[in-house]
Amino acid sequence: MPVFLSTRDADFEAQFTALLGAKREDSPDVDHIVAEIIADIRARGDEALLEYTQRFDRLELTADTLAFSEAEIDALIAEVPAEEREALELAAARIRAYHERQIPEDQRWTDESGAELGWRWTPVSAAGLYVPGGLASYPSSVLMNAIPAKVAGVQRLAITVPTPDGVANPLVLLAARLSGVDEVYRVGGAQAVAALAYGTDTIKPVDKITGPGNAFVAAAKRRVFGKVGIDMIAGPSEILVIADKDNNADWIALDLMSQAEHDESAQSILITDSEDFAREVCAAVDRQLETLERRAIAGASWRDFGAVIVVDDLDQAAQLSDRIAPEHLELCVADPDGLSDKITHAGAIFLGAWTPEAIGDYVGGPNHVLPTARSARFSSGLSVMDFVKRTTLAKMTPAALRAIGPAAEVLAKSESLQSHGLSVTARLQSLND
Amino acid sequence: MPVFLSTRDADFEAQFTALLGAKREDSPDVDHIVAEIIADIRARGDEALLEYTQRFDRLELTADTLAFSEAEIDALIAEVPAEEREALELAAARIRAYHERQIPEDQRWTDESGAELGWRWTPVSAAGLYVPGGLASYPSSVLMNAIPAKVAGVQRLAITVPTPDGVANPLVLLAARLSGVDEVYRVGGAQAVAALAYGTDTIKPVDKITGPGNAFVAAAKRRVFGKVGIDMIAGPSEILVIADKDNNADWIALDLMSQAEHDESAQSILITDSEDFAREVCAAVDRQLETLERRAIAGASWRDFGAVIVVDDLDQAAQLSDRIAPEHLELCVADPDGLSDKITHAGAIFLGAWTPEAIGDYVGGPNHVLPTARSARFSSGLSVMDFVKRTTLAKMTPAALRAIGPAAEVLAKSESLQSHGLSVTARLQSLND
Repeated sequence: MPVFLSTRDADFEAQFTALLGAKREDSPDVDHIVAEIIADIRARGDEALLEYTQRFDRLELTADTLAFSEAEIDALIAEVPAEEREALELAAARIRAYHERQIPEDQRWTDESGAELGWRWTPVSAAGLYVPGGLASYPSSVLMNAIPAKVAGVQRLAITVPTPDGVANPLVLLAARLSGVDEVYRVGGAQAVAALAYGTDTIKPVDKITGPGNAFVAAAKRRVFGKVGIDMIAGPSEILVIADKDNNADWIALDLMSQAEHDESAQSILITDSEDFAREVCAAVDRQLETLERRAIAGASWRDFGAVIVVDDLDQAAQLSDRIAPEHLELCVADPDGLSDKITHAGAIFLGAWTPEAIGDYVGGPNHVLPTARSARFSSGLSVMDFVKRTTLAKMTPAALRAIGPAAEVLAKSESLQSHGLSVTARLQSLND
Repeated sequence: MPVFLSTRDADFEAQFTALLGAKREDSPDVDHIVAEIIADIRARGDEALLEYTQRFDRLELTADTLAFSEAEIDALIAEVPAEEREALELAAARIRAYHERQIPEDQRWTDESGAELGWRWTPVSAAGLYVPGGLASYPSSVLMNAIPAKVAGVQRLAITVPTPDGVANPLVLLAARLSGVDEVYRVGGAQAVAALAYGTDTIKPVDKITGPGNAFVAAAKRRVFGKVGIDMIAGPSEILVIADKDNNADWIALDLMSQAEHDESAQSILITDSEDFAREVCAAVDRQLETLERRAIAGASWRDFGAVIVVDDLDQAAQLSDRIAPEHLELCVADPDGLSDKITHAGAIFLGAWTPEAIGDYVGGPNHVLPTARSARFSSGLSVMDFVKRTTLAKMTPAALRAIGPAAEVLAKSESLQSHGLSVTARLQSLND
């Protein structure tokens, strides 16, 4: 059974704080192993990469077969049934349309001093996308990472995806093709991250690495951060559903299970203003858990990290939601927009009972790579902004320098940075000569 | 003498690559000390914070005197000479005007399926700004960190600034006041970062920490990353000046020295298409180094990390500049805008000889917290965007779900995520009942 709380419980605050603080993931400390792998890739390049791939993926490659050839990709993609291809195409089109609206605008203006100011945005030149192998090899995640990069204008987008025993996922390759990915390498683990960051003879280095992965991949991303940019280090998935009593308990239960089935460390929370409805949803979950294919995973997640919280009213729900700062937030209430306006911290909001979170995972359009573990307090989901960077621009005229230069001279002096001041003084003096 | 290269040198590529790869900073490994300090602050809160402050800053405080009182701030600010106050006010006004243009816009639209999509931006609730003490206690950096936070709408902005032996910098407090900072604590080091991230009885925790600091502060920021957001870990400052022969060699030399005087690890590079001008600038630097107050620092930086590169033409200069991806880039050429268009990777560009980089440090308007160590390839300077986060929005109608839901069902099945699919199926079925 999940935790069942009411804000009227005498110990509610203590219990809620414990829920917020619960550690859901034991990250094994693999940092020293990862450090060795990275050092080895830096020292021996392709040779080390091929050895690790043989050892971890039981796959014999050569420098020539590290990348999938176009012909191999064509052949694998041809296996994809039409229904799946069409679904992936719809998803790609919708994700692209959403993200195209995120392209930021350059600005340039002249202020009252005559100084021209502004900024401009440029894409990262080369990006690498890590795609997990095996069970967590999600074609939808390829779309969600690759399309924003290509919309941003990244010229060279490389994917690494391990293919243990040589088994590739045709849908992953189709998603890569639909997204415009330029290179696909069949390598994985910390060695793939190291190859993307530092380069080998075969894999040219990239400037930014995104994408999910296991503890080795996460540790490798942390280590190469600075040498290249990385996206967030994602934790296990979470959903918070705020639902009033006028909901179908089965729908809400399925929404909760759609996070729980990801991972035993996932977390599903229901907040409702009706205790009766809360009990109905719990009963519906129990029924569903009898038949779900992933009932072992979903059941463990629900039992260990699930929570049901009964509140007095929806304002209270909004306040608790902001303390949770959920990755996914469903608002299954009569006025979802009104409730949404009372909420500040959430990765993605799904408005109304007709918007199950799963729509956002695939075909809604917004990105499904979202901040976990309460980091929606200070960070955002993946977007075009992760693949662009801003250069600020300033252009003085002699008049502008005369207007604002003296203040710079004073401040430079106050900070004991003499040359800073002199670089302005020399120019101002020439105007007086 | 700095490195003096020409693209015509037979070994230019090797020398340039060596220059790019040169390590300028030896970060002492203080991680284990920092881990202990953080654990101690988490365990003992104010008590530990007061002990560390006594030990490292030789300052006896109590929980009641951790924060500067308004009266103390008033008294310190009253010491600031009018000239400095006015310069700081001008800088604050210009920085605010520039950053107000960065406030991102919310979007909401309805697509052809009838789905409402969009996103909205909200500020981080509470932010903490680390301000170094001693020599590197720059009031300008307070403005550059605090103003974007307040423009973003951060409600609670706390500063920590160590005051060794109780000595405070009145200009730092004035800058905090002008920026609208809410709380100022006289603590520093890893213990201040830990207090901001985890909170103590006196210092409430924040969601995001920015600001420069020494190796202890940098290690602490890395460690608390995830619990809170952090800005970049800044490396030593750099400038690249691209100048043609029609420049005043003294101006260019002063611009180079204005980075070199920051730090012995700073780096100043000149690229020019005139070998004669290159030699003139070197001579001018040597002359200046005889009298500069910080000649020991600036001289060491110029000797150890300075570089002068003679190119055939300015196109070549642009290409080399993109490989350097400089923090600061001055374009002292006849057509700076034209050259700027050929450059992709730079933190800030200063257009034309009337725009010394020092203007950007103080009063230009753009932020002076910029990506170092080639990270302009994938990251941007500090901005309002660092203090806001985006929540994506999606709202389906029954018709929209009917249009795009089936594709989600197919993709969920292909990823073996049954509940994801069922959460859509249950809703679609109800439409057919």
